[in-house]
Amino acid sequence: MNDTVHPLATLARLEATIAQRAAADPSSSYVAKLNARGVPKIAQKVGEEAVEAVIAAMADDRAGLIGESADLLFHLLVLLNAKGIALSDITDELDRREGVSGIVEKASRKED
Amino acid sequence: MNDTVHPLATLARLEATIAQRAAADPSSSYVAKLNARGVPKIAQKVGEEAVEAVIAAMADDRAGLIGESADLLFHLLVLLNAKGIALSDITDELDRREGVSGIVEKASRKED
Amino acid sequence: MNDTVHPLATLARLEATIAQRAAADPSSSYVAKLNARGVPKIAQKVGEEAVEAVIAAMADDRAGLIGESADLLFHLLVLLNAKGIALSDITDELDRREGVSGIVEKASRKED
Amino acid sequence: MNDTVHPLATLARLEATIAQRAAADPSSSYVAKLNARGVPKIAQKVGEEAVEAVIAAMADDRAGLIGESADLLFHLLVLLNAKGIALSDITDELDRREGVSGIVEKASRKED
Repeated sequence: MNDTVHPLATLARLEATIAQRAAADPSSSYVAKLNARGVPKIAQKVGEEAVEAVIAAMADDRAGLIGESADLLFHLLVLLNAKGIALSDITDELDRREGVSGIVEKASRKED
Repeated sequence: MNDTVHPLATLARLEATIAQRAAADPSSSYVAKLNARGVPKIAQKVGEEAVEAVIAAMADDRAGLIGESADLLFHLLVLLNAKGIALSDITDELDRREGVSGIVEKASRKED
Repeated sequence: MNDTVHPLATLARLEATIAQRAAADPSSSYVAKLNARGVPKIAQKVGEEAVEAVIAAMADDRAGLIGESADLLFHLLVLLNAKGIALSDITDELDRREGVSGIVEKASRKED
Repeated sequence: MNDTVHPLATLARLEATIAQRAAADPSSSYVAKLNARGVPKIAQKVGEEAVEAVIAAMADDRAGLIGESADLLFHLLVLLNAKGIALSDITDELDRREGVSGIVEKASRKED
C-alpha cells in the first residue's frame, strides 16, 4: 500500500492514529496509556528517546539510530497531539523560517 | 507556493536542502557549519533541542513547543543526513512497526 | 589552599557561593543571571550539560567528560538552590537508599 | 552514623562502593550489571535521569527532584568510574575555575 503514496504519508497517518487512540482505554493502547499518564510522562519519553538517538549516532549504530529516530518522532507526535498541536504547525514554522530568511536565520540566531 | 502541496512536502524539501548544503562552505550556511563540526556537535544539538521541547511542553508554552519541535526536527534531519540515513528509512521503520503488530508492539516493548 | 581540606569541601563551598550569589545583581554574576531567568532556563542548562557529558563519554574524551561533569554538577547545584533543596537532601536520599536495601533497591526498581 | 561525619562523605563512600562493585558478577549488583552493559548504557542512564530531574523541576515536584537528582548523581558516579575518572577530578576542575577567575569565567564562556 505504501508503494504509490509519498513515504511521508506515514507521518500523517501516524498522526491521525495517535489522535484517534489518545482518548481510548489506557489498557488498550500504548498511546492511550501515555496520555493517561499525562504530559510529564510523554515529555520524559521524548527526552529519553532523544538521548538514545544521540548515543546511537555517537556509537555509529545505523540500525539503532533509525530505530531511536522512529521512537523520537513517534513520541514527539504523541506530545504534540496531547498539547493540541498539529504536525502542520511544525512544518508551517519550518516553512516560515525558510521563507523569511532561509536556514541562515538559524545561523545568526543560534551560534552558541 | 505551499497552498497546493501537502504540508509534509516541507519535510521532503527540507531534507533535500540539508543534503545539498551539507558539503558547502561552512561560512555560507548553518547546515554546512554543523557538518564541518561533525556528528558529536550535531548530536548535541538534537539532544539540546529535545530538552528545550520538553521544557516548553512542561511550561505549557505552545509557541515555544512549536518552535522547539521545529528545531528538533531540523537538527534530527541534519543528523540523519550526516549518517547517510533518509527520512524514508525512519518512516519505513514506523510503517514496519505498525504493520507487524501495531503500536501495541511498542506497549509490550517499552514499559518505561 | 585545598591541600588540607577534603576535596568534597569544594561542593559545600560551591553550594554556599551559589546561595550567596543567587539573589545578586544579574549583571554581576552568572549564577544571579541564571536565577533571574528562572527555573526553566536553569533546568535547560542541566539537561544540556548532561547531553554534553553523554557525548564526551561516547567520544572517549576524558578532559571533555571532566569539564562537562563539572558543568553538570554546577548547574544541578544552581537548580537545587533555586528550588530550596540542599545538597545534603540529595545525599540523605542516597544514604536512605543504601541504608534500606543497598543499591540492590535500585536494581529492582529501575530495570528499564 | 551520619551524625558526626560530613554529609558529603556520602558521595565519597558511594564512589568507593561503586568502584568496588563495578567488576562484580552482573547478577549480584546493579552497578556491576550497568558496567557489564557498557558505557553507552551508563551514559544513557545519565541522560535519562537528567531529563527526569528537568521534568521534576518544571513540575515543581520537590520530592521528585530530590529523587531524580540522587539518581543523576549516582549514575554520573558510575559513568565516571567506568571511564577512570574520580569525583576529585571534577571537584579539582570546579576549584580551578573558581581559582582562575571565579564563576565569572563561566559567564563569559557560556552565554548561549
